[in-house]
Amino acid sequence: MPQNARTKVRRVAQRGHYDRETIHAILDSSWIAHVSFADPKGQPFVIPMLYAREGDSLYLHGSIASRLLKSVGSGIETCLCVTLVDGVVLARSHFHHSMNYRSVVAFGQAVAVEDPADKAAIFERFVDALIPGRARESRAADRNEINATSLLRFDIEDASAKIRTGEPKDDPADRELPVWAGVVPVTQHFGEAITAADVVAGVPIPRSVINLLGR
Amino acid sequence: MPQNARTKVRRVAQRGHYDRETIHAILDSSWIAHVSFADPKGQPFVIPMLYAREGDSLYLHGSIASRLLKSVGSGIETCLCVTLVDGVVLARSHFHHSMNYRSVVAFGQAVAVEDPADKAAIFERFVDALIPGRARESRAADRNEINATSLLRFDIEDASAKIRTGEPKDDPADRELPVWAGVVPVTQHFGEAITAADVVAGVPIPRSVINLLGR
Repeated sequence: MPQNARTKVRRVAQRGHYDRETIHAILDSSWIAHVSFADPKGQPFVIPMLYAREGDSLYLHGSIASRLLKSVGSGIETCLCVTLVDGVVLARSHFHHSMNYRSVVAFGQAVAVEDPADKAAIFERFVDALIPGRARESRAADRNEINATSLLRFDIEDASAKIRTGEPKDDPADRELPVWAGVVPVTQHFGEAITAADVVAGVPIPRSVINLLGR
Repeated sequence: MPQNARTKVRRVAQRGHYDRETIHAILDSSWIAHVSFADPKGQPFVIPMLYAREGDSLYLHGSIASRLLKSVGSGIETCLCVTLVDGVVLARSHFHHSMNYRSVVAFGQAVAVEDPADKAAIFERFVDALIPGRARESRAADRNEINATSLLRFDIEDASAKIRTGEPKDDPADRELPVWAGVVPVTQHFGEAITAADVVAGVPIPRSVINLLGR
């Protein structure tokens, strides 16, 4: 991915990554992007949106975005961020407390997807992005549902990843202090599936859920 | 919190909440806010920032924000979002797949905190927001560390919360389909604490970590 003034990671340069593989891997590990736009007066908005990645594009569900699109035309300058938390980092000093995390900030433009066949295909991608293998288990969107949904395509123009891993980086002078330092890992945990009350009797928990729960 | 055109939850109005208690509870359950600004040309930025809440203000660590502050003056229009994921919602139809989540979108202005005594106190709040009770266990920031850190105070002018809970909302016509529907809960899990390699021998895992792990 190209580096430029928008994306260069300045604060802690050794945490910056610009390769496509790293950026895609982070994007493929989350569900929600925080998507920001500014209105014509410069008022910023940021909203959480479900997304599905395809190559260097992300598909996004509409609402505020689609209202803004109407107000500014067919392409709107967009910046979005995806963040995964991996741990709480405890240092000897307040100053060096931190988190372990992976994040991507991406810049580009959002445009509306209008073609019904494209929208139907994107719907399937959204469902499989939520939980892999689910699209084929459930009823595809019909024409009314497709028409009722605003979908945006965001093409990544440039992007950067920031990753922090490992131990706290304490000052050498603090390492003799009798203060514990280390990391508490944070992970996402899937609980037991809760079957909806009105599911037809005898319908089992599907393969997609069994796979998600790692059984 | 006041409602206005910026914050009114339009898409699914019954998911909107505007009371301070709900908004504060969500803000107090996460570490990272996605903070957005626009530069003078209308280019939006969104970056993940650690925060600590105090009343209707959030304290934020600087970097891009502080650069933008320098470019636009002492107050910058800001929108930030905090999102917590609670579950994957599987419906009979692609259309009704969703997530259970809690989110807050807040609008206001960010200003730099300059006073060293204020900054020292905010540092303590940041450490305790990361892991409650930790500030008193570790070395407070000294003058150099305080000077080296850009801190912003974001005052919430208006905010709204969106919350989705519970089962999928399938179309009545789909409820007879032999398709499983339900929720896979998603929670945050803390793993066993990993002690840094160079901690002074005999220093135990501290109370803050023991409390976090619920033991």
